[in-house]
Amino acid sequence: MESLAVAGTLRGREGEGTRMDKVNLGRAFASFAEHWSPRIVGDVNDMQVKVAKLQGEFVWHHHDQEDELFLVVTGRLVMRFRDREVSLEPGELIIVPRGTEHQPFAPEECHVLLFEPRSTLNTGDMENERTVRTLERLA
Amino acid sequence: MESLAVAGTLRGREGEGTRMDKVNLGRAFASFAEHWSPRIVGDVNDMQVKVAKLQGEFVWHHHDQEDELFLVVTGRLVMRFRDREVSLEPGELIIVPRGTEHQPFAPEECHVLLFEPRSTLNTGDMENERTVRTLERLA
Repeated sequence: MESLAVAGTLRGREGEGTRMDKVNLGRAFASFAEHWSPRIVGDVNDMQVKVAKLQGEFVWHHHDQEDELFLVVTGRLVMRFRDREVSLEPGELIIVPRGTEHQPFAPEECHVLLFEPRSTLNTGDMENERTVRTLERLA
Repeated sequence: MESLAVAGTLRGREGEGTRMDKVNLGRAFASFAEHWSPRIVGDVNDMQVKVAKLQGEFVWHHHDQEDELFLVVTGRLVMRFRDREVSLEPGELIIVPRGTEHQPFAPEECHVLLFEPRSTLNTGDMENERTVRTLERLA
C-alpha cells in the first residue's frame, strides 16, 4: 500500500491539468479503500473510465440504456445472470448489455476497471443505500 | 504462445453468440501477430474495445472527433506529443483527447487495449498504407 502522498499523484506529471497525463492503475487503487464506490479516472467522449474495489455481493440490477464493461485487474469477479454465471480472472473482461439483469459478486476483494456511459448509475434501476450519485474523480 | 485451436476460443462459452461471454485478453493477443492492426473484442454503446500489437513508430495523426484510450497490457508504449512524450508501462493508461496530434512509439512489441468511438480510424486524419478500414472482430 502506497502512502497517501504518493497515491495522490495519479497523473504522470504533477500539477498539469490536461487529460494527456497517464493514469497508473496501481496508484489509483491504492488511493481509496471503500468497496462498491467507483472512482472516475478519465473520460473518453461521452463514456467514463472508472476503477472500483468490489467485495461480497452487490444488488441485482440492470441499466436501461447503458452497456457496462468490467475488466478484472486483480482478484476474481463472478458475474451472475438470471440463468448462469461467468467467473472472471485478472486480464478478463465482460460486457453486460443494457437491459440485462446482473449481480456482481466478488468472493474476495477484486479490483476492476469499468468503461461505461457517463449516465450510468452504479445500482442501475435500483436505488438503495449502495447508490452513489456523485463519484469522486481521481484523474 | 497458445495454439491457434485454443486461441480461437476467446469467449467463455464456445458457440454462444451473446455479448455476455467473457474475453480473455491473453488469448485475444495470442490469436494474431500483425502490428498496428487493431482487432475488435467488444462494443460498449457506441464505443469499441480493441486489442492491438504495436512495434516501432506509427504515423503522426489526430482524430477530429474521437478521444482515444490506450491501456498498456504488456511492454512499453511511448506516446509522443508535439511538445513532450509520456512513457507507459503495463497497468498504465492514457487518454489522447480529440484534436491532439500524437505518435505512438513502441521500442519493443507492446500489447494495448484501446477504447474509442466506433467511428475511429486508426490513422486518424492521415490515410496511408497503415490505414485499416475494416477491423477483424475477435469476439
